[in-house]
Amino acid sequence: MTHIEVSFGDCDPAGIAFYPNIFRWLDKAFHDWLRPRGGHAHLCVELDALGIGLIDAKAQFRRPIVDGDALVIGLTIKEWSRKTVTIEYEGRIGNALAFQAQEVRGLFKRENGDTFAAEITALKELVETIGEK
Amino acid sequence: MTHIEVSFGDCDPAGIAFYPNIFRWLDKAFHDWLRPRGGHAHLCVELDALGIGLIDAKAQFRRPIVDGDALVIGLTIKEWSRKTVTIEYEGRIGNALAFQAQEVRGLFKRENGDTFAAEITALKELVETIGEK
Amino acid sequence: MTHIEVSFGDCDPAGIAFYPNIFRWLDKAFHDWLRPRGGHAHLCVELDALGIGLIDAKAQFRRPIVDGDALVIGLTIKEWSRKTVTIEYEGRIGNALAFQAQEVRGLFKRENGDTFAAEITALKELVETIGEK
Amino acid sequence: MTHIEVSFGDCDPAGIAFYPNIFRWLDKAFHDWLRPRGGHAHLCVELDALGIGLIDAKAQFRRPIVDGDALVIGLTIKEWSRKTVTIEYEGRIGNALAFQAQEVRGLFKRENGDTFAAEITALKELVETIGEK
Repeated sequence: MTHIEVSFGDCDPAGIAFYPNIFRWLDKAFHDWLRPRGGHAHLCVELDALGIGLIDAKAQFRRPIVDGDALVIGLTIKEWSRKTVTIEYEGRIGNALAFQAQEVRGLFKRENGDTFAAEITALKELVETIGEK
Repeated sequence: MTHIEVSFGDCDPAGIAFYPNIFRWLDKAFHDWLRPRGGHAHLCVELDALGIGLIDAKAQFRRPIVDGDALVIGLTIKEWSRKTVTIEYEGRIGNALAFQAQEVRGLFKRENGDTFAAEITALKELVETIGEK
Repeated sequence: MTHIEVSFGDCDPAGIAFYPNIFRWLDKAFHDWLRPRGGHAHLCVELDALGIGLIDAKAQFRRPIVDGDALVIGLTIKEWSRKTVTIEYEGRIGNALAFQAQEVRGLFKRENGDTFAAEITALKELVETIGEK
Repeated sequence: MTHIEVSFGDCDPAGIAFYPNIFRWLDKAFHDWLRPRGGHAHLCVELDALGIGLIDAKAQFRRPIVDGDALVIGLTIKEWSRKTVTIEYEGRIGNALAFQAQEVRGLFKRENGDTFAAEITALKELVETIGEK
């Protein structure tokens, strides 16, 4: 679970959390999940990768988030495919659903100046192994 | 067309534009489009609305965006429904497609402390009238 | 005390927290302080003010802040003058000093389209009264 | 000169540019200045440095910046010392002064896991040589 205390500066002139910040919080939730499983920096060194980056992201906003809200973000790994991992998020304030979101991420490597999505199996094995310790 | 000069601070430790910034730029493109059609603040006063906010947002990232890139974002109003407007975006660096994205926005009003999506026809008429001047 | 879990997306291509984010965290620390003393929105309504905004801000960065750091920000109200309040901040990671910072804030009001710094005594009294409850 | 088109999402619930964004724009102005002089990434490779980062930053805010403002930021290199460079900024909207700001930056290197400010003369020579071409 990732806990976000929404602050004044996260909100726009309508007094509502500026929506790109919600994606910023999803990214934090993903890195929070990654941390006890090795952490982004360490995993990238291990896998000779540039990053575990975004292929696709989407969110459905269910109710406005405002200054002072205690937002809790839950994360579910939905599916590993050959080159992608699909992650689902749910943001709640108390019992109320604030948003649902999905990310598709890849394991990006760089070769001869090109960035490409590599096979992701090695990452899956690594996070599962470290996570079980 | 919205022009973004991508800077160092827009990028993450992988040296790639941090993806929530791409949504920040979509929002700028929408407000750039709105400006000659009245602008967000003026339209909200006219329509007694809180804001023209997000119901749904998604993006498909096609290639990494880096420090120094000159990003050009095109916007197409795809569809007006009774309570929503769907907007499509395309981000290019030179001829290369960097991302495609879609937003569904509503006209949010507040009544008795509740925020809700109102009928959006009045906004459609207003932006079309002012835009034609 | 304000607690910040520094995340990947807070950092720049050098792998260090992008410094404008540190000012974002100072602002959060100020609003965290304000919250049990009425909170920004409520105090602004009470005082017919636009905001408790910045006149001056500065920071001295002592050591780099990186992904995964648990940053703790302490706040001290240094001085109330007729039209300003001076706030001092100290950011620590464990025992190590990460930064020191100062903000000078005013109570901004709007009259006839002009924004100006009003006398701040009423704010001082209000936060002290509510804070003591 | 760095040109910033201030947008809705740069502003806070008071309708005024959230002040950490002003520091974000200073950083962009610095990187814009660096670009024709080699650019941050290239200079860091040349000098075996981690980054040209912040030691100290301050700003004096003179008038509120709002959605739609065309902000122009001027930059002056004030002084090179042995380990620092001092940069002054001025932000204007039309003829009106919006802010003044100063940054002190160092050339950061990493050795045995420690980050430290190295002598900056080599950077001075490099930006002056490339800038004269």
